[in-house]
Amino acid sequence: MIENFLKGDRLVAARVISMVENDLPEGREILDSLYGRVGGAHRIGITGPPGAGKSTIVDQVVLRLRKDGLHIGIIAADPSSPFTGGAFLGDRIRMADVATDDGVFIRSLATRGNSGGLPRTAEDICDVLDAFGKDAVVIETAGVGQTEFEIVHAADTTIVVLVPESGDSIQAMKAGLMEIGDIFCINKADREGADRAASVLRESLELKGEASWKPPVLLTIATEGAGIAELVDRVRDHRKYLAEHGLLESKRKARIESKIVTAVRERIWNRAYQRFEQDLPSKVERVYLTRITPTEAVEEIVEGLGAERS
Amino acid sequence: MIENFLKGDRLVAARVISMVENDLPEGREILDSLYGRVGGAHRIGITGPPGAGKSTIVDQVVLRLRKDGLHIGIIAADPSSPFTGGAFLGDRIRMADVATDDGVFIRSLATRGNSGGLPRTAEDICDVLDAFGKDAVVIETAGVGQTEFEIVHAADTTIVVLVPESGDSIQAMKAGLMEIGDIFCINKADREGADRAASVLRESLELKGEASWKPPVLLTIATEGAGIAELVDRVRDHRKYLAEHGLLESKRKARIESKIVTAVRERIWNRAYQRFEQDLPSKVERVYLTRITPTEAVEEIVEGLGAERS
Repeated sequence: MIENFLKGDRLVAARVISMVENDLPEGREILDSLYGRVGGAHRIGITGPPGAGKSTIVDQVVLRLRKDGLHIGIIAADPSSPFTGGAFLGDRIRMADVATDDGVFIRSLATRGNSGGLPRTAEDICDVLDAFGKDAVVIETAGVGQTEFEIVHAADTTIVVLVPESGDSIQAMKAGLMEIGDIFCINKADREGADRAASVLRESLELKGEASWKPPVLLTIATEGAGIAELVDRVRDHRKYLAEHGLLESKRKARIESKIVTAVRERIWNRAYQRFEQDLPSKVERVYLTRITPTEAVEEIVEGLGAERS
Repeated sequence: MIENFLKGDRLVAARVISMVENDLPEGREILDSLYGRVGGAHRIGITGPPGAGKSTIVDQVVLRLRKDGLHIGIIAADPSSPFTGGAFLGDRIRMADVATDDGVFIRSLATRGNSGGLPRTAEDICDVLDAFGKDAVVIETAGVGQTEFEIVHAADTTIVVLVPESGDSIQAMKAGLMEIGDIFCINKADREGADRAASVLRESLELKGEASWKPPVLLTIATEGAGIAELVDRVRDHRKYLAEHGLLESKRKARIESKIVTAVRERIWNRAYQRFEQDLPSKVERVYLTRITPTEAVEEIVEGLGAERS
């Protein structure tokens, strides 16, 4: 299976991803064995409010990268993305160029609840596509909820897509999007207010102080491909910047760390929970009847867990 | 301090809440000692999309409950709520009746990030207001992200506020809001499409099958107080229904259980993390250099934690 995966068999890749997504032991084993091949792909996150045109930007950026011969993975974790089948038929047809290209591997992920949050397995799937030989992996998420923070962690370069109307509310805008963008696009820039939105945004970004990377603010009209060439240039600039400052490495290590920590936490918690689960209803009952306080219930459980093991 | 709290000293109550919110040991102690007095307040959650008029509904509902002599707590966890100072001055002035009433205790909570998520301490603060003698505690949250699930857990009765325009998208609407509402309000019902939105919503709710409580769908114009009397009646009906079916008790127990489980998890995790934290960078480095796989790193840590204690 791994042999065929490394030969570039797309069906095998899809199966590996499914195993990883469903958190099967085989998936973890394969991922482990591929780990030496992870690290080459540029991970590009795209986020922003619903309706900003994120999917069209992804589409256009990918088309351009393909012209340069790069192999691309797309992970769509936005429930309303055409890539996940959630959008209008027209959009899906427009994306057909990319969707039928053998050099592009598209995977849509079920998001948790309605939060549009990045699934826990998104980084693992990035790793699979990375090991599969993709030069870049684009991750599209809806810019709501916790995703903003998650995308920064998962991606090397984060593009925030806004629309001209965002200008009115940039001051009041969710600070989150302001803080996470490495590159900003005012998309649908043929609509009124685009220049103003861009300058308000630039001003706000100025206030952020002396970082060594100043996030550029671009105007794009993704449906016409306008501004995409510059966007791709800035994405490359950013990767170069990361490499020169050792940031690709530190981001990669941060991802490894959180992967390890998450797995350890799960293991510890599952083991502990199994051991006090059966006592829980009686503790709850005693707290409910105010025989013991919640804190006493916690103490009893924690002590019980300690005693049992010593 | 507890004496003055029980005498109804608002300043002391505010201080207790701050201690609880900041997770100070004193806060936990006081909460423990008050636990016998928790359980009387009806917890009413209000959620819905931004701009639906949630705060005005809260305001109107609270005014009406006050006329019946009830004492009310308000917890505003919506960053754009006038109660949290996030809204336009006009709204805040409109709310002034409620805000200056001694029988109403308003607390706004800092929400996590931009998710509008319900802070972990919201339930504890409900407990404080409950013990403080409030007859009802109204919790206002933005209907985005994970909040929807959190509000159901925190509240006995959940009101979902929509607008007539929601009618167009109810089918496509975030299933979350459909599932969590015990009562639905189509607010701003003087706008076009209110009746249609209500009937689409009623149909969708029919499909949910035979629950013993059929969520009513009401039309309200909160700025004029229209429909509020009926809303308050339905809130009372729902509480009666919960009491008759033992659901107030089971909801309360579920809250106690998750409070205990969360605290145990934190305790276990903090202790474990402290013990492997210093080894973590070297594990990460070895995974980075592909000397070991991520799974091997996890195994080493988990085994280390086990060995150390036996």
